Amino acid sequence: MSNEEKIVAAAIKHLNEEPTASMARLAEAIGTSRATLHRHFASREALIHTLGVCSLDRWEASQNEAGMAEAAASGDPERIAATLRAMMRLFTADADEYGFALTDHFLAAMPDLVARAEELEEREVAFYEAAQRAGVLRADLPVRWISNAVLGILIAARDSLRRGDIARRDVPDLVLTTLLHGTDGDSQGERP
Amino acid sequence: MSNEEKIVAAAIKHLNEEPTASMARLAEAIGTSRATLHRHFASREALIHTLGVCSLDRWEASQNEAGMAEAAASGDPERIAATLRAMMRLFTADADEYGFALTDHFLAAMPDLVARAEELEEREVAFYEAAQRAGVLRADLPVRWISNAVLGILIAARDSLRRGDIARRDVPDLVLTTLLHGTDGDSQGERP
Repeated sequence: MSNEEKIVAAAIKHLNEEPTASMARLAEAIGTSRATLHRHFASREALIHTLGVCSLDRWEASQNEAGMAEAAASGDPERIAATLRAMMRLFTADADEYGFALTDHFLAAMPDLVARAEELEEREVAFYEAAQRAGVLRADLPVRWISNAVLGILIAARDSLRRGDIARRDVPDLVLTTLLHGTDGDSQGERP
Repeated sequence: MSNEEKIVAAAIKHLNEEPTASMARLAEAIGTSRATLHRHFASREALIHTLGVCSLDRWEASQNEAGMAEAAASGDPERIAATLRAMMRLFTADADEYGFALTDHFLAAMPDLVARAEELEEREVAFYEAAQRAGVLRADLPVRWISNAVLGILIAARDSLRRGDIARRDVPDLVLTTLLHGTDGDSQGERP
């Protein structure tokens, strides 16, 4: 890991705990000098931009690792269902690691990052559409609503972990069962 | 409405669209002078604090309007289920109107607002526990996970509206059916 990569990793970790931290506060928390931090990142905006790129890289890597595009192209319900489970497990870990990026208003105002996020989201929407066609996901829900609901449940996972509400080992199953089966008392409550 | 109330309403509306707006930008968007805005609110932090109080007032009002505490005390499954539906309809409208407050990192760093939000959340957790005892909500899910999942789905509703992904009239039913029945292809897809 280069020095810059170490700074980025430490900054992400700290921003997850204190998303409004200033550059001075970040330098202190990372254990480096303000001068060193500023040598790598001219402004807080430049640092946040780099962290945003990292979180989008991770999102794309998780889509690929789960084999999202191939599963969608196969049209095979079992393969699509297995891929959906793999995606949610990977995304849950990502939401924990890159938590602040899920809801950072400054990131959401950077046009190049927004454009790339939309591109990744379009790929995912294509997968959810394939899942609807294969009967894996409800066809009566708008596909973009499903995509937004997934993000909402991942924010819930992040916040539950941050606040110590649930055990880390329980999170992926809770995300999956809630997304798929909901919270109604009459539902099976089956573990996915 | 006093002048200050008008400013607050306009500021909330603009921050929903541009959550990182500066005081200068807000004054411009509201159609007032920076001097007038600063006479009412000494700093951006003071303005955001007031908006945070407004959003918590609304949350509390919606809990009360739905009759949350009384339904929980009744233990009656039908009453609890009807109250849950009323809460989600009110909360969905609130999430749309006070959208930025759901995920603002600055609000989340103001201790008095955090304390009041936790108090409101505790009341709501007590209601979800009553709903679990009455068989209205799944008893196998941690109650705080349910509470966080509700917030996540409301964030999804807010983002779907902001981005124009779904029609406003469809949002409350989508929130309810997704929260209760999930997105699994084998689920009924029944409208709540």
